[in-house]
Amino acid sequence: MGKLNLSTTTQNNSNLESFFQQRVDQFLKTHIKSNNIIDESIVYALEAPGKRVRPTLLYLVSDALTLELDHADAIAGALETIHTYSLVHDDLPCMDDDDLRRGQPSLHKKYNEATAVLAGDAMQSMAIEMLLDNQHFTEKQNNLLAKMLLETIGSKGMILGQALDIEYESREANESEILLMCELKTGVLIEFCFLAPLMIADASNEKWERLGKIVGISFQLIDDLLDLQETSENLGKKSQKDIIRNKKNYPISFGEKKTVELLDAYKAEANNLLQELNLDEHYLSNYIMNLFDRRI
Amino acid sequence: MGKLNLSTTTQNNSNLESFFQQRVDQFLKTHIKSNNIIDESIVYALEAPGKRVRPTLLYLVSDALTLELDHADAIAGALETIHTYSLVHDDLPCMDDDDLRRGQPSLHKKYNEATAVLAGDAMQSMAIEMLLDNQHFTEKQNNLLAKMLLETIGSKGMILGQALDIEYESREANESEILLMCELKTGVLIEFCFLAPLMIADASNEKWERLGKIVGISFQLIDDLLDLQETSENLGKKSQKDIIRNKKNYPISFGEKKTVELLDAYKAEANNLLQELNLDEHYLSNYIMNLFDRRI
Repeated sequence: MGKLNLSTTTQNNSNLESFFQQRVDQFLKTHIKSNNIIDESIVYALEAPGKRVRPTLLYLVSDALTLELDHADAIAGALETIHTYSLVHDDLPCMDDDDLRRGQPSLHKKYNEATAVLAGDAMQSMAIEMLLDNQHFTEKQNNLLAKMLLETIGSKGMILGQALDIEYESREANESEILLMCELKTGVLIEFCFLAPLMIADASNEKWERLGKIVGISFQLIDDLLDLQETSENLGKKSQKDIIRNKKNYPISFGEKKTVELLDAYKAEANNLLQELNLDEHYLSNYIMNLFDRRI
Repeated sequence: MGKLNLSTTTQNNSNLESFFQQRVDQFLKTHIKSNNIIDESIVYALEAPGKRVRPTLLYLVSDALTLELDHADAIAGALETIHTYSLVHDDLPCMDDDDLRRGQPSLHKKYNEATAVLAGDAMQSMAIEMLLDNQHFTEKQNNLLAKMLLETIGSKGMILGQALDIEYESREANESEILLMCELKTGVLIEFCFLAPLMIADASNEKWERLGKIVGISFQLIDDLLDLQETSENLGKKSQKDIIRNKKNYPISFGEKKTVELLDAYKAEANNLLQELNLDEHYLSNYIMNLFDRRI
């Protein structure tokens, strides 16, 4: 564990990110044919240029645990499909009302609101089907992975996070409430990128779990910071929207300085955990450190 | 097969419907605790008085195939949860814009639109979890059932039906297009009430499949007829809404007379199939015939 064994499939580390992006995109392309208006709109949303952070994390954690990459393809596809469905519903006028996503019109602007509701619904079904159809695992493993993902995205997970996000627009929220909201609406799906391969490899331990948890929360905190600092053009989506909507994210409520301090602490902790897990030479470490330093 | 073996659990046939309604309601009640705003809204939607047609059909088909009723509980709960999620999203202003459902305010009127989108999303996850958690079947059977249901409700099934329903508001549709839309938006989920127990009992044949198909299509045709003929008060939801929205359902496009003729033909065919399947003494036959004669 901990040694990069991807050198046979890629020329060097700097190509790894685009390698993983292309890998999950290829999986999605072969799985979703555009036969009708709903599938066409799903392809539109999935083909928009995203960073594919969740698939990349999943592949890297899988590799670090010496799992085969092709065993992870269906999980990567499911994760990106779930993430995209959550964005499509989140962008609806009755939710965050965003017209721009991944540098192009949101699905409800390109098509219409009804199509966006339905396409998101169908993407959720599609993602779980991908997991259950994975031929590389046993029925029991597929069953467990699907249940884990459904719990992650359900009414006690991601959906609750999005509901709290909306609820806090109209009331005050304290620090622990805001951190919980961050973890639920964004963190838990990123945590799943760690927990899924850990379950398959039967390698779960507190260090790995903690790593997944802080990477997940930090991802949202960085998003919130960038939303305050960047222009829409650089982000590929509307910036400063949280202030406009009276949202209660961490930097808005407690200031940029305190957010940066919290992120620095999480980054140092993640770095320690990666060393303790003997992953300092694995590209997962670079990738996670780069996530902490990202500007987009 | 074909003999009613429910006599030990119910006093007489006239109590059967409320017996099944209570049975699935009890299952849902023990499975969904109202711990947060999303779960609370889900309980609100699920506790509204519905006819529980899908669970009842599922239980009756299961019984006709001599399956145990408690093995069907999780499937019944999943079916009612999926059906309710589809109603919650369908009632949204950007879809059919209905303020009234099952005699009470629609979820987005009782709460708000964002909560309705999120609650529907979470109900889909919850329903599939119910299937995957069913302790009465093997993991392979649970996975097969979940995949069957996901395909049924996905972008080539129920969701496509709802997309076509919206699409036809702004263009003409011919008879076969309208019948396909009926089958997809409503029929396939009712068909699943037949196909799921058939799969578990390994008893699938063309007669059973045809029965499920025509009961499913007919259910939508009867809904469309009632929508034209009844008042909102009797229906528990807005009536004549299809004409108002320029929808292209069968009676609107081809007249009430032709719809009644088609339904009479389907009813006669269903009756023949039930006899050929030796089900004329099973309560499933009464129930299906009553569905054809329903006025609400």
